[in-house]
Amino acid sequence: MDDREARMALCCAVEPGNLEVTAAVDEQGAEAVLASLREPGSRSRWAARAQAVDLAAVHRATRRNRLRFVVPGDPDWPAALDDLSTGEPVQKMGGMPFGLWLKGEGSLAAVAERSVAIVGSRAATAYGQSVATDLAAGLGMQGVSVVSGGAYGIDAAAHAGALAATAPTVAVMAGGLDSTYPPGNASLLHRVAGHGLLVSELPPGEHPTRARFLSRNRLIAALCPATIIVEAAWRSGARNTVSWANACRRIVLAVPGPVHSATSATPHRLIRDAEAVLCTGVADVLELVGPLGRQPPSRPDQRSWVDRLSADELAVYEVLPGRGQVDAGEVSLRAGVSLASCLAILDRLAEQGLVEPGPDGWRLAGERVTRTGD
Amino acid sequence: MDDREARMALCCAVEPGNLEVTAAVDEQGAEAVLASLREPGSRSRWAARAQAVDLAAVHRATRRNRLRFVVPGDPDWPAALDDLSTGEPVQKMGGMPFGLWLKGEGSLAAVAERSVAIVGSRAATAYGQSVATDLAAGLGMQGVSVVSGGAYGIDAAAHAGALAATAPTVAVMAGGLDSTYPPGNASLLHRVAGHGLLVSELPPGEHPTRARFLSRNRLIAALCPATIIVEAAWRSGARNTVSWANACRRIVLAVPGPVHSATSATPHRLIRDAEAVLCTGVADVLELVGPLGRQPPSRPDQRSWVDRLSADELAVYEVLPGRGQVDAGEVSLRAGVSLASCLAILDRLAEQGLVEPGPDGWRLAGERVTRTGD
Repeated sequence: MDDREARMALCCAVEPGNLEVTAAVDEQGAEAVLASLREPGSRSRWAARAQAVDLAAVHRATRRNRLRFVVPGDPDWPAALDDLSTGEPVQKMGGMPFGLWLKGEGSLAAVAERSVAIVGSRAATAYGQSVATDLAAGLGMQGVSVVSGGAYGIDAAAHAGALAATAPTVAVMAGGLDSTYPPGNASLLHRVAGHGLLVSELPPGEHPTRARFLSRNRLIAALCPATIIVEAAWRSGARNTVSWANACRRIVLAVPGPVHSATSATPHRLIRDAEAVLCTGVADVLELVGPLGRQPPSRPDQRSWVDRLSADELAVYEVLPGRGQVDAGEVSLRAGVSLASCLAILDRLAEQGLVEPGPDGWRLAGERVTRTGD
Repeated sequence: MDDREARMALCCAVEPGNLEVTAAVDEQGAEAVLASLREPGSRSRWAARAQAVDLAAVHRATRRNRLRFVVPGDPDWPAALDDLSTGEPVQKMGGMPFGLWLKGEGSLAAVAERSVAIVGSRAATAYGQSVATDLAAGLGMQGVSVVSGGAYGIDAAAHAGALAATAPTVAVMAGGLDSTYPPGNASLLHRVAGHGLLVSELPPGEHPTRARFLSRNRLIAALCPATIIVEAAWRSGARNTVSWANACRRIVLAVPGPVHSATSATPHRLIRDAEAVLCTGVADVLELVGPLGRQPPSRPDQRSWVDRLSADELAVYEVLPGRGQVDAGEVSLRAGVSLASCLAILDRLAEQGLVEPGPDGWRLAGERVTRTGD
């Protein structure tokens, strides 16, 4: 049995996000952990399930449903998921999945690299659904894929918006990909599989459970550089996804709405408590997750300006590279300044002519300054 | 001529918020400044107007319109207006008014002490007007007076809400109080004068101008501990009031709304850039401007907890007094932590059982901790 087979068996034997087993796999490898679970005297709670796994049947079900099974190290494996297992956050993060079943043609790694999660209530309002659809379509047209959970309400609106823009979209499911849940979204999820990807860490035949929905949320949060919460009750799955996203140090955005709307109370509270950045549209998202690449002017001598900056302003200014543009989310991380402060500081620096927003992020406003020094 | 008469004459001769003259009055006193303006050879732009002032006529108009004229040092003079002239901010703050005409029975000083400004667009939506009315009525029922500008839209909705709660409300006008502007609000402003106060730094007979509206905004911002912006275009008078409020280091709150609504774009941008705290209702306001006074338990020994706090958390925790409650705005100021961070920290400290929200602000959660130590 090789690593891939062992990981498939672990997916069948162990509930998603079990920290004990994922930590053991990180340390000893999948084959050793599976072998120890299968030892006759094993006292693990997963021993019976591990011994009962029929891998041949799982392979048959995988083929029959036209699924792929990918594991860490495969080209399709998204590097972002490593954040679920590295270092101290492992205690909170529920661990990396042992493997993932995929349905659809695309590369999950490529799609996830430039993606945004859009999450929210099943019991969404027409307002929330229209915002989710517009955001997803607008992001799709900018080449940003939308990841969500395939549920009714905000999730469905987000997938539909991405599909309307003929952009790939990813639905991360809490059960096996042989059936679609919820049943009312079967047609939508079929289209997602056709133009994007369905993803699950559970083998065909497994049904979603409450615990599996919560574990699934960590995958949505970890896959994407940013998560947008549109409408949600405080104790909702979407709120749980936001907690994962914050724990993964991902960018979190929240969409405001009418103050009388109960489903906007959670986004409002997240914004108020600085757990999320206010998001009114695609531009707010792209400012935070924009691509890198263009050639900016070289760093000019701005010593006299720099001397007047506060410590935080200097930190933000200094992390902007001599060449290239960086999105505000990245600036915030590198400078160690909260996102909200970072945005305010970038605006102040822009007012002083030190930096400027470019098409692909923030950059030094070097050319202009050099010219005024002529 | 005494100080009061000189100030009345300066109100007639000099446009509101003229930094040069207000600074001279701070330094030399009103009588000396007026005398120098009236000197035959004076080259001041205000000289002609100063020489033409007919104080007897102004007194007659003041009496005829049942107005009072108050100056710094009077019991009715709101101490908060001193912030317009003290120290370095004077360069930005447009100076203290020389005096104020009041219409109505109440004490402006008493009303301003526990007040909130509600400002926004004349071209408000039904949503914005309903939020403004609800906020004003709710604040009124909590003993908080509402200050606004008497204009159509958000201003009128705020005054009407306060009146509905039979709470005093203050309209600061940009012209003399002999006539009401805008004419369509005449009946509303008559009721404001009956149950609250009309206020102006311009003598009877003077009409509002664009510059006077902007100068008037500094009075609204300075009078109140907090300003709430409900709906507004970016280059609106309400946005100008928010700038004054931030310059005066007042609390600024902004009401979110649907992302498609053009009039909510300004509140959203202020919230996103951390220039305003998100406000969904009266509770959000009271948390920031709540009164002081009740008797909390004495500070318990919480050394083990305290050791685990971050520097900012410790700063917030330490400024909470052994006795009494402090609103979050005050905590933020004393601890030197931004409002948004302060709110998040207070929530975290509350989760750890270290502090708790009381009816009149935040307090140490001493009783509970002492009990668990029993």
